[in-house]
Amino acid sequence: MMNKGMNKRAEKPGPGRRAGQPETRQAILDAARARFTAEGFTATTVRAIATDAGVDAAMINYFFGSKQKLFEEALALRANPMTLIPPQLKGSVEGLPRRILTTLLETWDNPEFRSPLLALVSNLSDDPTENALIRSFLEDSIAGPIATRLTEAGLGADMAAARAGMMASQLVGVVIARYVVVARPFADLQRQVIIDTMAPALEMILLGGTHTR
Amino acid sequence: MMNKGMNKRAEKPGPGRRAGQPETRQAILDAARARFTAEGFTATTVRAIATDAGVDAAMINYFFGSKQKLFEEALALRANPMTLIPPQLKGSVEGLPRRILTTLLETWDNPEFRSPLLALVSNLSDDPTENALIRSFLEDSIAGPIATRLTEAGLGADMAAARAGMMASQLVGVVIARYVVVARPFADLQRQVIIDTMAPALEMILLGGTHTR
Repeated sequence: MMNKGMNKRAEKPGPGRRAGQPETRQAILDAARARFTAEGFTATTVRAIATDAGVDAAMINYFFGSKQKLFEEALALRANPMTLIPPQLKGSVEGLPRRILTTLLETWDNPEFRSPLLALVSNLSDDPTENALIRSFLEDSIAGPIATRLTEAGLGADMAAARAGMMASQLVGVVIARYVVVARPFADLQRQVIIDTMAPALEMILLGGTHTR
Repeated sequence: MMNKGMNKRAEKPGPGRRAGQPETRQAILDAARARFTAEGFTATTVRAIATDAGVDAAMINYFFGSKQKLFEEALALRANPMTLIPPQLKGSVEGLPRRILTTLLETWDNPEFRSPLLALVSNLSDDPTENALIRSFLEDSIAGPIATRLTEAGLGADMAAARAGMMASQLVGVVIARYVVVARPFADLQRQVIIDTMAPALEMILLGGTHTR
């Protein structure tokens, strides 16, 4: 094991894995992928990954800078669901569903971003306890921030969480039906058709109100 | 192989598997499960299952009565998505989302129905070509019949298919988020809260119109 608090490259090499060795980096990535997938982002600690990989936690920071960067690299994510939502929260609550839907579809319609996300989302187990990573995306990276934004706009906390959760479920449905199952004609629809039709419906889920034909 | 056209029990036993033997029945079920999962309901023929199982196609009818019954039994489905939608299509188009959402949630909230459906839905591959069964549910058993109902109500065929597909994607999202991922608080919400909040939004997806707060 490396010395505690070590944060520079192989300053005092110990008997464990050494910084600078490609296999150390890969061991960290492998351990991280396993932990994140099994336990989700939030519950996974850098310390646990370090223990699994047989390195000091400081070496992870040395290599990757942050838990989030490690996460992105371990899962080969070029578009990280955790970083996509926050910028959309700025601006009106009314426009929020349209902004999020646009970002979601632009990201997934891009094959470069899609492949690793597809691997992630299609990896669902029929044992719900094993779906921790996707659950943590939904709860912590999508529904959670939307609920917070709704309470800022004046909605009660329980109602905000319920409405944000319902909206998040709809986004999951778009992803599964269009990119994982590739149901037609939905998968072939122009992005703008989906946005124009679904954004008002999502707005109603978030904000309530009435529908007039 | 059994004689062609044979439909009574082991009338003229041939060299192949015999009716009445439990292993014959099981061989048919195994072959059916593999075919349906790989190719979907529509593309799978009873003849292909019979060939895989080494029996005459008539023996499948003898044992199971119909392709649909065989499907239900092969997948151990007590609630078959194919049979859930058609009864909801009767009645007004405006009320359709509420009726379908109610049936969907009642079915999945029942643990007895949920387990086999969960195994089916969570069995998604990151290779979309392998998701034929779920694709055939979405296209042929959910979106298709809804689109037909919309055209009966006067909508053009392309628009009807697009809107029905968008609505079907929302139903998938509810199932994945609530039962497979078990995202909270969405998974804990009362059924009626989800129905009351989401039915008007789904109605807007199906019928268009405007949202007023």
